Amino acid sequence: MGGGPEVPLREGAQKNDVLLAVLPWPEQLSAKIISEIKDEFPKLEIHYIQENFPKKDRAKTEVPEDLTKRAKFLATIAWLPATASKSPNLELIQFFSAGTNHIAEHPIYTDSEIPLTTASGVHGPQIAEWVIMLNLVHSHNYIQLYEQQKKKEWVQSKGAQVRDGVGRRVGVLGYGSIGRQVARLAQALGSDVIAYTASPRKTPESRRDNGFIVPGTGDPEGSIPSAWYSGLDKKSLHEFLRQEIDLLVLSVPLTKDTQHFLSTDEFELLHKSNPNGTYVANISRGGIIDQPALIKALESKQISGAALDVADPEPLPSDDPLWDAPNVLITPHISGMSTVYAERAFGVLRENLRRRRDGKNFVNQVDRKRGY
Amino acid sequence: MGGGPEVPLREGAQKNDVLLAVLPWPEQLSAKIISEIKDEFPKLEIHYIQENFPKKDRAKTEVPEDLTKRAKFLATIAWLPATASKSPNLELIQFFSAGTNHIAEHPIYTDSEIPLTTASGVHGPQIAEWVIMLNLVHSHNYIQLYEQQKKKEWVQSKGAQVRDGVGRRVGVLGYGSIGRQVARLAQALGSDVIAYTASPRKTPESRRDNGFIVPGTGDPEGSIPSAWYSGLDKKSLHEFLRQEIDLLVLSVPLTKDTQHFLSTDEFELLHKSNPNGTYVANISRGGIIDQPALIKALESKQISGAALDVADPEPLPSDDPLWDAPNVLITPHISGMSTVYAERAFGVLRENLRRRRDGKNFVNQVDRKRGY
Repeated sequence: MGGGPEVPLREGAQKNDVLLAVLPWPEQLSAKIISEIKDEFPKLEIHYIQENFPKKDRAKTEVPEDLTKRAKFLATIAWLPATASKSPNLELIQFFSAGTNHIAEHPIYTDSEIPLTTASGVHGPQIAEWVIMLNLVHSHNYIQLYEQQKKKEWVQSKGAQVRDGVGRRVGVLGYGSIGRQVARLAQALGSDVIAYTASPRKTPESRRDNGFIVPGTGDPEGSIPSAWYSGLDKKSLHEFLRQEIDLLVLSVPLTKDTQHFLSTDEFELLHKSNPNGTYVANISRGGIIDQPALIKALESKQISGAALDVADPEPLPSDDPLWDAPNVLITPHISGMSTVYAERAFGVLRENLRRRRDGKNFVNQVDRKRGY
Repeated sequence: MGGGPEVPLREGAQKNDVLLAVLPWPEQLSAKIISEIKDEFPKLEIHYIQENFPKKDRAKTEVPEDLTKRAKFLATIAWLPATASKSPNLELIQFFSAGTNHIAEHPIYTDSEIPLTTASGVHGPQIAEWVIMLNLVHSHNYIQLYEQQKKKEWVQSKGAQVRDGVGRRVGVLGYGSIGRQVARLAQALGSDVIAYTASPRKTPESRRDNGFIVPGTGDPEGSIPSAWYSGLDKKSLHEFLRQEIDLLVLSVPLTKDTQHFLSTDEFELLHKSNPNGTYVANISRGGIIDQPALIKALESKQISGAALDVADPEPLPSDDPLWDAPNVLITPHISGMSTVYAERAFGVLRENLRRRRDGKNFVNQVDRKRGY
């Protein structure tokens, strides 16, 4: 032992655990947290390979056979060993994506039992900021103030009709990691929060967030909502939409049940319940909303406006009528992007290395049958 | 007694307490809270007079002599009885403005001892929202995303360089009701908050907010900041500015001490401490910042940008070079406006009626010598 020169290990000698990272970003971007992981797990041998660009060539990234064989932990988005037998030592595949749909047909998924974990939870902060930002841009009439600035005009009337968040109601449709961080911000703004989930959450246990949580964010215990609603049928949804919601946040996954979850009837209901006009923010998938019905609701002022980071289809063609709807703010599916995305995903991996060391269950482990 | 017709009170009979409100808004705007006050204080006789428009004629609003004489409580911004002797029954003047500078030469201020209270505290929610909104517009590159929407373009690159608030540091220069609500929001975003005050706040007692607080907002106990700094000299200020601040919020009053509090040296210091670039938000007064120095700091990228609701002078002339500085967002001194302003100020009055009933000290009482 000691500080001597590194000697190649002979076959059969005690080797370090290998963490193989095959990721799209330069290693330098995550240098700080990689070094922290090395400090915490000194026996870990970390190999970082930047994957091929463009995206379609990701999965073809070349990884030395020896590393593939020795790897105990794999950090990846798209690249996988061809079959489980190529990586006989793998004990964990930590995906740096929120889901694993994109590899659901791969033999590692269909034919192996290697634990798979996702980076679900790392999108909460930036997407919740996007939601609150656009809700404020709308409620503070900021677009008009900005256009006025461009004309170098100092006129106060454009700022006079601001209604802040104190005492307003935020309805979070889909109370996952993103919805929980929206709730945290809404609470700080002085708003009341109500939550909607697919299945009922009647016990404190069931309200807990068991996934990865960016430290200092979210609603770990599910203690923020003043009321919980649930169901996948329209009748249950309508009960929720009748609660005089000022800001409705769509953060449910797109499934056959939630396809066009908001359509003509739902916009009518929102209007009846809150004639001042609900503001709708969609950061889920375009298909959650029946888009022609949304355009009508905007044109008829049934709702006060919409902030959309997703559309149907994407990219939204330049001749789509949605662009011309009144009071709509559209961004091109970017709300999840963050310069610290890779660092946060390494944070999930670190958490799982700790849990393995401490004999605990992994966080964000995929149930292969359920699909997430 | 009973439900009979109202009979004019004879001279000397038991009369109700009179609350006289002379305010710029239509009474209807505050109907809900006025009715709540009536319910809570059934012996209160409320007279509402909408004051003259435009602003310069406010103080000349005509108020019947009899009401002026009988008034026990006065709710006002500008109108006052000519002298204290015209209102011998006055026990409280509740101003609906944050300060009383505008009437500091009036005999009621200089020659009477009628308790004066302000509406300080009612601006916190809307101004804090303005600060966080513009900080997010900057950090999420929203202006470019918005300009892209106008062109009906769906291009993701504009959204790629977002750094959210988790782990960032917010420095609040002036920890009053507005600064405290900014702190509350920053904490929810996952940021660290440090506070700066004129005088040291070493004890829990001294950190408390003793003014009116909009329920559910702010930092009543002063428990949010991880560190406190203080002083009115530049040396103390510099110690604060050296703390790698990502968002610097200016919410100090403008006094001879704080005139040009931020100038060339301070922008240099900010840059040295945080080369990524501090974002500066000013919702106090234009004079807090040496404006030509700010323009240089923006042009040389010493700071990453500035959000300004105030300028020097106001209105900012259309040929002022500040309009052309890079990364500056300017709004025309509107961040304090709110459609619920009057309602909130009535909330302060209600609190003071309760305190009088319960034999407690008024909230927001002006110290005539100190001037606020």
